[in-house]
Amino acid sequence: MKVFIIGVGLIGGSLAKDLKSIGDFQITGIDKNKLNLNFALKDGIIDRLGKINEINKANIVILSVDVESAIELLPKILTLINNNCLVIDFGSTKGKLCSLVSDHPKRNQFLATHPIAGKENSGPQHASSYLFKDKIQIICESDKTRKDLFDLAKSIFNQIGMNLRYMEPNENDKNMAYVSHLSHISSFMLGKTVLEIEKTKNIIDLAGSGFESTVRLAKSSPEMWAPIFKQNKKNVTKALDDYINNLLDFKKKILNNEFDDLKNQMKEINNLTKILNRNKQ
Amino acid sequence: MKVFIIGVGLIGGSLAKDLKSIGDFQITGIDKNKLNLNFALKDGIIDRLGKINEINKANIVILSVDVESAIELLPKILTLINNNCLVIDFGSTKGKLCSLVSDHPKRNQFLATHPIAGKENSGPQHASSYLFKDKIQIICESDKTRKDLFDLAKSIFNQIGMNLRYMEPNENDKNMAYVSHLSHISSFMLGKTVLEIEKTKNIIDLAGSGFESTVRLAKSSPEMWAPIFKQNKKNVTKALDDYINNLLDFKKKILNNEFDDLKNQMKEINNLTKILNRNKQ
Repeated sequence: MKVFIIGVGLIGGSLAKDLKSIGDFQITGIDKNKLNLNFALKDGIIDRLGKINEINKANIVILSVDVESAIELLPKILTLINNNCLVIDFGSTKGKLCSLVSDHPKRNQFLATHPIAGKENSGPQHASSYLFKDKIQIICESDKTRKDLFDLAKSIFNQIGMNLRYMEPNENDKNMAYVSHLSHISSFMLGKTVLEIEKTKNIIDLAGSGFESTVRLAKSSPEMWAPIFKQNKKNVTKALDDYINNLLDFKKKILNNEFDDLKNQMKEINNLTKILNRNKQ
Repeated sequence: MKVFIIGVGLIGGSLAKDLKSIGDFQITGIDKNKLNLNFALKDGIIDRLGKINEINKANIVILSVDVESAIELLPKILTLINNNCLVIDFGSTKGKLCSLVSDHPKRNQFLATHPIAGKENSGPQHASSYLFKDKIQIICESDKTRKDLFDLAKSIFNQIGMNLRYMEPNENDKNMAYVSHLSHISSFMLGKTVLEIEKTKNIIDLAGSGFESTVRLAKSSPEMWAPIFKQNKKNVTKALDDYINNLLDFKKKILNNEFDDLKNQMKEINNLTKILNRNKQ
């Protein structure tokens, strides 16, 4: 099968590796980042470099670019593909993309997905087989995808070990604002706050492993994340408001010496760990 | 040598393990948490249970309790010890404690330290040898400690692999507000914000490894952290102000569509990783 991967970064590269391990897929890579593309070719992640106007030869197109580029590319791709080609997008936001193509003549050849998988490092250099193993794959509007094509997608997701979850596009975007997009902003801003002090005195070398864990996501790709914040503006700013209000309340309680209250609050938050661990079982 | 460890938690327990591996130390544990104390005795972390009025027999007293309890205990301990006993405290804040005992007749038997070592899990169950290996040990006002006692402390810290850093007590407290205390609050509040949504719908099972890393510190002990926020109120609320202002600015830029600016900001913050990695070399 001929697979075109548009966006050969961490996600596209990892999927390419997985596909090669489960079947006979010939993989063509397209990416505006020529360094990434050449790395992927040299490393055997993809078999050849391609161009967008050859895409009518594809059996499957994987769209794993930033979510604003996806908005630009998806309608063009749908127009160019042949009538039996499946297009899957892997972006973190789903609302705008799904509504954009809702009336496209080839809507039923498209499947909108969001894998809960990733790393703070980007690029095909960090691609790994098994990135998707045992991870959730959110599927949106599967009833709008032609059954034979959806079955093909499901078969691939199952073979690479993903757990399917069905969700409305806007529900994905709301949920992700809290469990993914907000934690990226909180981490970036923690990094910024500390770097501002670092300008006048070295303090980062005093940081322990706890700080490092909390700013891990501040390594993330700005090219990937700025588009997510743009596209999910409403939900992200709502989550940010909730977070800032909680911080202001915590600060107020410190100033008012309400330490028993803060202690109780922290005890309740400790339960988060139990929920996270429960979900792993 | 007879060592009394007051507070046999993660820090006290780990130090006990280290001491046993470097020399002939008989370790007595004191803790108001009887479960922890009995665990430590049964597990061989300490050799015996003790009482505060036996402390005159000690050659070394380690104070590894929460920082508010340290304020209560240190003057009493100094009064009780014999004239050749060394007292070392291991708390995260140093200003209030050092100023409290500055005129104590036995001030020169006390050494104020702060190890940049820990885990999000507390209690002697999580104690480990090598917790302190290659970690920074901040030393405050070492010129106020009697030379022979300071030499003894240094010899222990060196043998367990710690790197000594000298700092004024208030400087420790200011720096820690940014690189340690703030990241705990940011993590707790992220956990709180997501748990508030979780009350009405399950979203935490959609969280990936990035979220988990960012909320890792939300497992931390409220008993340990509320006293730190209390004692370091001024510096912690200043760091919180800086952090909240950065979050508000980030939100404003999202709302105003200043995404190029946000992208540049995130690119700069990406450098944090380089600084963290550089410090490891």
